[in-house]
Formats: sequence, C-alpha cells, structure tokens
Amino acid sequence: MKQVLHGHIIHAPELGRLEIIENGYMYVEDGRICGLGQSLDPLWRDAECCDYSDCLIMQAFCDMHLHAPQYPMLGMGMDLPLLDWLNTYTFKTESRFKDVDYARQVYRRLAQELIANGTTRVCAFSSLHLESTRVLMEEFERAGICGYVGKVNMDRNGSPELEERTEDSIRDTIAWLDGCDPDAHIKPILTPRFTPSCTDELMAELGSMAKARGLRVQSHLSENLSEIDWVGSLHPDCKQYWETYEKYGLFGPYTVMAHCVHSDARELAAIKRNQVVVAHCPDSNINLISGVAPIRHMLDEGIWVTLGSDIAGGAILPMMGVIAAAIRSSKVRRISEQWHVDFLTVAEGYYLGTSSGARYFGDKDGFASGNSLHAIVVDDRDQVDTGRLSVRERFERSIYRADAHDIKAVYSAGVRVKG
Amino acid sequence: MKQVLHGHIIHAPELGRLEIIENGYMYVEDGRICGLGQSLDPLWRDAECCDYSDCLIMQAFCDMHLHAPQYPMLGMGMDLPLLDWLNTYTFKTESRFKDVDYARQVYRRLAQELIANGTTRVCAFSSLHLESTRVLMEEFERAGICGYVGKVNMDRNGSPELEERTEDSIRDTIAWLDGCDPDAHIKPILTPRFTPSCTDELMAELGSMAKARGLRVQSHLSENLSEIDWVGSLHPDCKQYWETYEKYGLFGPYTVMAHCVHSDARELAAIKRNQVVVAHCPDSNINLISGVAPIRHMLDEGIWVTLGSDIAGGAILPMMGVIAAAIRSSKVRRISEQWHVDFLTVAEGYYLGTSSGARYFGDKDGFASGNSLHAIVVDDRDQVDTGRLSVRERFERSIYRADAHDIKAVYSAGVRVKG
Repeated sequence: MKQVLHGHIIHAPELGRLEIIENGYMYVEDGRICGLGQSLDPLWRDAECCDYSDCLIMQAFCDMHLHAPQYPMLGMGMDLPLLDWLNTYTFKTESRFKDVDYARQVYRRLAQELIANGTTRVCAFSSLHLESTRVLMEEFERAGICGYVGKVNMDRNGSPELEERTEDSIRDTIAWLDGCDPDAHIKPILTPRFTPSCTDELMAELGSMAKARGLRVQSHLSENLSEIDWVGSLHPDCKQYWETYEKYGLFGPYTVMAHCVHSDARELAAIKRNQVVVAHCPDSNINLISGVAPIRHMLDEGIWVTLGSDIAGGAILPMMGVIAAAIRSSKVRRISEQWHVDFLTVAEGYYLGTSSGARYFGDKDGFASGNSLHAIVVDDRDQVDTGRLSVRERFERSIYRADAHDIKAVYSAGVRVKG
Repeated sequence: MKQVLHGHIIHAPELGRLEIIENGYMYVEDGRICGLGQSLDPLWRDAECCDYSDCLIMQAFCDMHLHAPQYPMLGMGMDLPLLDWLNTYTFKTESRFKDVDYARQVYRRLAQELIANGTTRVCAFSSLHLESTRVLMEEFERAGICGYVGKVNMDRNGSPELEERTEDSIRDTIAWLDGCDPDAHIKPILTPRFTPSCTDELMAELGSMAKARGLRVQSHLSENLSEIDWVGSLHPDCKQYWETYEKYGLFGPYTVMAHCVHSDARELAAIKRNQVVVAHCPDSNINLISGVAPIRHMLDEGIWVTLGSDIAGGAILPMMGVIAAAIRSSKVRRISEQWHVDFLTVAEGYYLGTSSGARYFGDKDGFASGNSLHAIVVDDRDQVDTGRLSVRERFERSIYRADAHDIKAVYSAGVRVKG
C-alpha cells in the first residue's frame, strides 16, 4: 500500500543536525519510507494522502530502558536512594505481578500510555514472572509497540516475595524463550537484573543461552557508588563492574547497559570496544541521587548513547520529557564541570531519543529511505503564537511542552496506532 | 456564605510536615477557612457541600517569579545562556507588548493556563509597557488570580526596541501606580528589571516611591556569574550585588529576589537580616545553565524561600512541575556536594510551592483557620491502582504526574475559578 504523509517534517539525520521540510511530503510503501520531498511527486498522486497540513511530523521515540512492572509506582517513593528504594518499594511492587490478571490490567494501560506519548519502540524489563512476561509482550504487541522485552533473572539478593531459585530461573527462561513468536514485533532479550541479583551459575547459563540462541542482553551498569562497591565485593576477581558481565559473555554488541553514570575511562573504553549500547536515564539518575552521567564525554568518545525513561526510578514516561531531562542533565554536568563541557542541544536530545535508539532496531538515522515508518504528528496549531513561529521553534516548544493530548497521530511499523 | 469541602485533605502546616485528613471536611465561611475536621460538624449540616469524595484537596500554588510577556516564548531559545538569551530572544519577545491587543490575547491565555494548573497567587513581571501592564492586571483579575504584578523599569542596557528614557520610566510608573484599583486582587509591585537595566537615578527614584507609597519590590539577584561581574563593574562602590539594591532602599522586608544562585554567606546573611524573600527558580537556573541554588542551606539558615516558574527561562508553568524540579535540583546539589547535603523531600517541596508563598500574601501555613481559601481538587481516581494506594502516595504521585486535566476544581480567594 502506498501512502503520502503531508506536513512539516522534522527529523534527525545525524547527531546535532535537524532537517526540516516545511509543507513536505513523506512517501511510504508497505510501511517503509521511500523518500521525502518538498513538493508532491506526480507518481504518488494516487496514493492515500494523510493530510497533516501545518502540523509537525516528527520521528517516534525509542525508550531504551524501562521497568514495566514498576509502572504502578510511577512518581512514588522518590525520597529514597537506589538500594533502599529497591528493597522497600520496588521489589514489593514487582512481586504483585505473579498475579496475571493484575499484570494484564497494568500492562494494557502502560502500553496505551506509551503509544499515546509516541513511544513506539522499547527495550523493557518485565518482572521475573514467566506468565506476566508473556502478558507484557502480548499487550505491547496489541498496542502496536515494537522492540524487546526481557523476563528478569534474579536468584539472589531479592526479597522473600521476589526471588527465584537458580534452576527455576533457568527453566522458566528457556520455557519463555521457546514460547516466543519469532514473527512478533516484540522479541525476547536476556535480562539479568544486575550483577548483585544473579549468582555466577545463573550468569554463566545466561551467557551460554545468549551465544547459543543469538540473543541480545540488557542489564544495569555503574548506576550508583554503593552498588559499584557491592559488585566489587561480590566479584573480587573483577577489576571493574563491566567485567562481571563480560566474563560470562554478557557484554557484547547490542548489549544495552542502563545508566553508566560512574563509568570511568577504562570502563567507557570497554563499552566502546565491545559495542555496548548505553541507555542514559537522566531523570532516574537524579531522582535516586545516583549521579549525573557524562553524556557529552561519551558522545565525544564515539559511544553509542540512547535514552531511557527508566520508570519508575524515572518519573517521566513521555520521551519528549525524557529528552528535555537529558538536556537539563547535560546542563547540570556543564555547571558541575565549571562550564567547560558542552551541553546537549535540543537537536542532539531529539537525536538521542529517536534515531540513536532506532539504530538498535535496524533503522538508519532520521526518516531515511528503507526505514520502517515510526512517526508522530504533533498538532500545536492551537498554541500561543503558532502562526508567527518558525517550524524549528514550534519543534523546540513541542519537545519542552507537548503532551499526549497534542499528539494527534502515531505510526508504528507503518501502521497508524493512534489517531 | 457557608461551604463545606469534603475529600482527602492534604496540607503543609510546616516545612517538611504533611497533615492528611482522609475523608475530611473543610469549613469555609465567606471565602475564609474556619477549620478542618474528620467528621461533619452538625452545625455545618446546612452549608453548601462541595463533595469531592475520594479526591485530593490540596493547597493551591504560589508562583513567586514569572515573566508574563515571555509566555509566548515558553520552551524556546533554550540553547543560549542568560545574557545572550536576554539580548537575542527575550527583549525581542517582550517588545511586542507595546501592542495592547496582542497583550490582551496572550495574557488571557496565560491567566487561563495558570488557573487550570492551580496557580492562584503570583508575583509577576510585566514588560515596561504601561498599557499592557494594565491589561495583564485586568486579565489576571478576571481569571481569579491574586497577587502582585509589576511594570518593569529598564532605562539602560536594553535593546533598541525595549528600553525607556529615565523620565518616561518614572512618569509611566507613577501613572500606573495612580491608576491601580486599591480593592483589586492584583496589586502593584515595583519592578526594576535588575541592576544592569536601571540607572542610579532610576533606582533612587524607585526607592523613594517604595518608601513614600509603602510598596513592595521585586527583582533579580546573583543568578549568573557573568551577570554578577557586570553588576560589580557598574557599581564599583558596592562590595556585592545585593548592596546595589540596598543603597536605594530596594532591599527590605517583602522584597522578592529571584534566583540567588551564587549568593555567598555574606549575601545570604543580608537576605535574612533584611527579611528579603528568595524566589527559587530551579528549572530556569538549569535551562540557562546559571547554577544550582543551595536551597537546603538557605532553609537551614532560616531564609524565607519560595518557588517561581520563571517562565520563560523556566519551561515549566505548572507549579507541581516546579515543585518536582525543585526537588530534583536539590538532589543535584546533593550529588555535587558529594552526598553531604540533604535533598528536599516531597513534603518540603510542597510547602515551598504553597505555604511559603502564601505567607507573602498574609496567610498562615497550610489550611490554617483564617486563611483565604486557595485550594485545588485533584481527581486521580482513574489512575492505575488508586484504590490500593495510601492518600500520601496518591499525593506524591500527583506532584510528579498530575497535569491540568487531573485538576478538577480550583478555588482562589474563596471563589471556585475552575470546575
């Protein structure tokens, strides 16, 4: 099927550069972008036209780190630091997902809220529960979300209500992987919670599975100083945190590591060398007082940085808000480094929240030809002064101010899933 | 007229303490609070009952620093530091308020958005334009907003389109003051933009007016390091920034000074001694990369701290968002001081955004008897899991997550102005 989307097109074909086509046209065939143009190509006259005149057609967002079962505690428990917060609040919340009906109800709402806010691709943690993980994948699929979901593995240092025996964790993981539909938009990803949650035996088993089945991996790295000390005491043979993953084959290309707030030069070099993807979670890092990640430095070093909401350490689910949080976080870093480090511009923040994540799913940057159509339509025509603003200004204002009510349509994998 | 409000009442009777009355009753007579109770007082059975069962009745918010004529640029120009941002973006936007019709249209929307988000009291900058300042006061009054509005004075270092001659500034200020309605909810406040914008002659004249007419004053203090250097070079006779106000009688009780990001011990002592009110603007300070104000330290010193959105250096108009930004900013400060300084709890942030500002308007802390009724009703019943959360958790979630759509009713000075 051929479609033409008409409106002001704003995309991020490389880090820091916006391309804006005012009153432009996007050509889509069978859900894939065929090109962009300033005037309507006569060959596309008969295609279905989606007329978004004077609205903004922007790239949809990729949330590269979120904990789906923490959605019910979004915006709560914010007066606690990471490890206390995990023990007194988070584990209790996640343990409720042994109830599949509860999971169904919560995950359906989460999926709706993600789509309503233009997040069409994710890399998400489920809980350790097998059935609820299936439910999460089904509900994401039903809502039109693409990406990866992982059943969490944790066989130590959990809580009485939230921990697996090693053999159960392995058995359930295999059962879960065997049951996944290879044609679904939501695919499995191996998810050791973090080093303190997994015995060496479990880590080794997950590393073997990753290799044997060609699976991707996601986990946490160097979020908080107490956590890093803890990992050091658990693995006295490893010089640094990342080595506790690498020694089990869980630190390779397309491994997503959330946070990396306190990664030093040596750890960053390992991240780059191993083609690991950093999921920067600016709001969570501040809420849990973990620290402020050196994102500008990572980008300068050529590290692959993406963004995550990290609900519910993060309290902001909409990725436009997470982009703004990343910009603010980079400004905080600039302040703390006596104004010697550059901040992220709005264009750079947009790239990190869209193109940089989309590469994880096989896309090229921006609305490149060949990409699957993931787009949102922002209708800001009713806002103050829209008529006299440039499209670039309207874009910037949307990043800072728009909410789900302003997002008129969302396309995911070529399908209109909102509007 | 007697009214009873019924719902979950959450107020901040002192810094850091929440009082929660589940399924409580608030008694109001002629717009003033007469008391709170856990069960319905039989003497109030015949009063008009506003039934907000299972909703949250919270204090309305005070925005103690905002620039009304920057509303059209909200969320834009964020890639520039303070002084460049002023010169290339802000002055241009404010200059458009010589057009009274434009002012009417913009200010009406601003007033609506403030009320929709539960901000019922403000301390606001207008532009330098006399007529548009009147329009701003009218539109705030009409929407049900209370507080102070100031015609800006600036007779140097503006831009060709935004600067006054000294004599015009004085003449217009007098004309404006003489025309204000003493019975209105919106009252005038003297507003020298900041020291670099005002000649010594103008400052002296404003100081005399403040004294002669018993007027309050608002301005900016120690926001940015370049600004502080500039002020030093303009006033070589003054050791510190605050003295450039004090020497003209513009630094006394009820003077609101926005920012105070870089105020050192000596300047903070002067602020406290002179009973100056700090308007902390956390989002603006980060957006413009000014710095992170030491709010915990100020509170420990007994300084009167309130919150401001500071639009459009701030990009967040809703005060619930500003409260969350203040909490985050305090956590950033904790990080930068190696975890040695406490952060603001949610209860403390709420106090700063409500009770602390309300004192400026003559109220006692919280929903105290005798206070004018300024309240909002948050309806979160449709959110995830509301039924199993405590009222305190629902309150915390609302601070982080609620938006204007969740605010079902707003009362200002005893009158329902929304819902």
